[in-house]
Amino acid sequence: MENLHFDSNTLKILDQRLLPNEEKWIEIKTKEQAYDAIKTLAVRGAPAIGVFAAYATAIFSRDTDIYELRDYLNSSRSTAVNLSWATGRIVDAYENGRSLIDEAEAIRNEDIEMCRKISEYGLSLLKDGDGILTHCNAGELAASRYGTGLGPIILGKEKGYNFKAYCDETRPLLQGARLTSYELERAGVDVTLICDNMAGYAMSKGLINAVLVGCDRVAANGDTANKIGTSSVAVLAKYYGIPFYVLGPYSTVDFNCKSGSEITIEEREAQEIKELYFEKPTALKETKCLNPAFDVTDNSLITAIITDKGIAYPPFSKSLKELLK
Amino acid sequence: MENLHFDSNTLKILDQRLLPNEEKWIEIKTKEQAYDAIKTLAVRGAPAIGVFAAYATAIFSRDTDIYELRDYLNSSRSTAVNLSWATGRIVDAYENGRSLIDEAEAIRNEDIEMCRKISEYGLSLLKDGDGILTHCNAGELAASRYGTGLGPIILGKEKGYNFKAYCDETRPLLQGARLTSYELERAGVDVTLICDNMAGYAMSKGLINAVLVGCDRVAANGDTANKIGTSSVAVLAKYYGIPFYVLGPYSTVDFNCKSGSEITIEEREAQEIKELYFEKPTALKETKCLNPAFDVTDNSLITAIITDKGIAYPPFSKSLKELLK
Repeated sequence: MENLHFDSNTLKILDQRLLPNEEKWIEIKTKEQAYDAIKTLAVRGAPAIGVFAAYATAIFSRDTDIYELRDYLNSSRSTAVNLSWATGRIVDAYENGRSLIDEAEAIRNEDIEMCRKISEYGLSLLKDGDGILTHCNAGELAASRYGTGLGPIILGKEKGYNFKAYCDETRPLLQGARLTSYELERAGVDVTLICDNMAGYAMSKGLINAVLVGCDRVAANGDTANKIGTSSVAVLAKYYGIPFYVLGPYSTVDFNCKSGSEITIEEREAQEIKELYFEKPTALKETKCLNPAFDVTDNSLITAIITDKGIAYPPFSKSLKELLK
Repeated sequence: MENLHFDSNTLKILDQRLLPNEEKWIEIKTKEQAYDAIKTLAVRGAPAIGVFAAYATAIFSRDTDIYELRDYLNSSRSTAVNLSWATGRIVDAYENGRSLIDEAEAIRNEDIEMCRKISEYGLSLLKDGDGILTHCNAGELAASRYGTGLGPIILGKEKGYNFKAYCDETRPLLQGARLTSYELERAGVDVTLICDNMAGYAMSKGLINAVLVGCDRVAANGDTANKIGTSSVAVLAKYYGIPFYVLGPYSTVDFNCKSGSEITIEEREAQEIKELYFEKPTALKETKCLNPAFDVTDNSLITAIITDKGIAYPPFSKSLKELLK
């Protein structure tokens, strides 16, 4: 399940806003379209955003100052560290006189390799028959082959494991329903969709043996920013004694960020909660909403952080650094 | 904000499925319509179901065996104990030769009085300026004047308190968005709508000083069945050190039910999660759902149970009984 095509000068992405009802590929012809594609979530998931932004920087720097372009694209989502990491690599290639397109391709290939490693490390912590809860989407649509958070489930399926996956639908943008349940269904996994507020019920009934989530940014102490609701799932997992695993590329760890309190949380529009996807508004026009796109899961709630460099266990301030050795 | 009109022989209810976009009253002319009104949630909320079922039993027993009618209406929702309690009172009146309509009116008037008392007891635990989180709808639409779970907020507003109410939208049926935020907005309360998975975020940011929820059934030990997601909010409140209050009529306490493990949880259709209210399905046709309508909050997570007979604190097995003295 691919989310991006690049062929000579043409950059196309699968418009993830239309799934699961329509599979539509859109061509990105301008830097404004690239900015909007990230901003409006046509492309989403930290690794996928990184790969996409790398290609966009490589292509549109032909017409624009590359530094302005980098800053412009970096401003499309405030939380994803992969975004500025990827555009930064293209700028590096530019400063060193290397091919920008080759650099973007390299980022993509490294991402595929990363996903495979994350999936293998993750799978080593699971056993056949496990019930696995996921939140949001950290699958192939959000990254590359296998994905990150979903990687162990999809790799496991290939290797003959029979997992029972449970997907939080993940309001307000419903990535768990529209993307995760879709990807897992297509991959032949036994999948059950639930509303976000049913995760605790599923845990209380003994249906869940492990929680797997992706991450948008991991602080040096292990505090993890991910889709809104993630930290609540972590609190529930702790209460019910279920391991809670964060999965992501090592590049998601931001050692310049000491703890989660330094992470800026993007707040989005009320319309996403009251109107988007619905036939009719769910509340009155004048009713205001609080709509944070992410939350920070405290490191004390995380059993392990699974990266392409290996598995980090608490205390994360130490273990995350040691993975580099 | 009334939910039921009875005038001579005509029973009308406000169709709560259409709120907040349409205020439509429907006349209930047959016992099948009464059954469907409860089953499909045109009338909902434990106290409101009780009052409605009492009128329906009184009216339609003119054409039908009252015992069969009682059993038929009782089978429309398996969890609400008020339903069988109310129809049982009409059967009692019948056996004792009293007016059935008078008995239904008495149940309604007692309900209004109950709500007022619950609201006053609840308000005594809050202070001006508090941020208050609610889940589902336990307001005037679910009961009578003031409601139960929302009662202290609405009574407080009348008395000049300035609460900041936060409503979980409450998937899949969105009672928190469609009904609670609507009722509170109409009552002039400062209200903010959030998705269910944002409750933990709001708590972590210090926005919430107390959680108020209704109840569908309280076991003798204080375990409480309420709308799906309630128990997760309780786990989060415990984690963040925020008082969690259950509010409901004393008749909701079922002393024949020793603990929550004896409560049957109604499971509803996948369509409610994937299709209802949406413009397009949120997941593939073949994707299955788990859709429990309720969950049970363990008594260890509950700070107090607020009834019309007074406030019960742990241990509830003792305190709930003592309220009768």
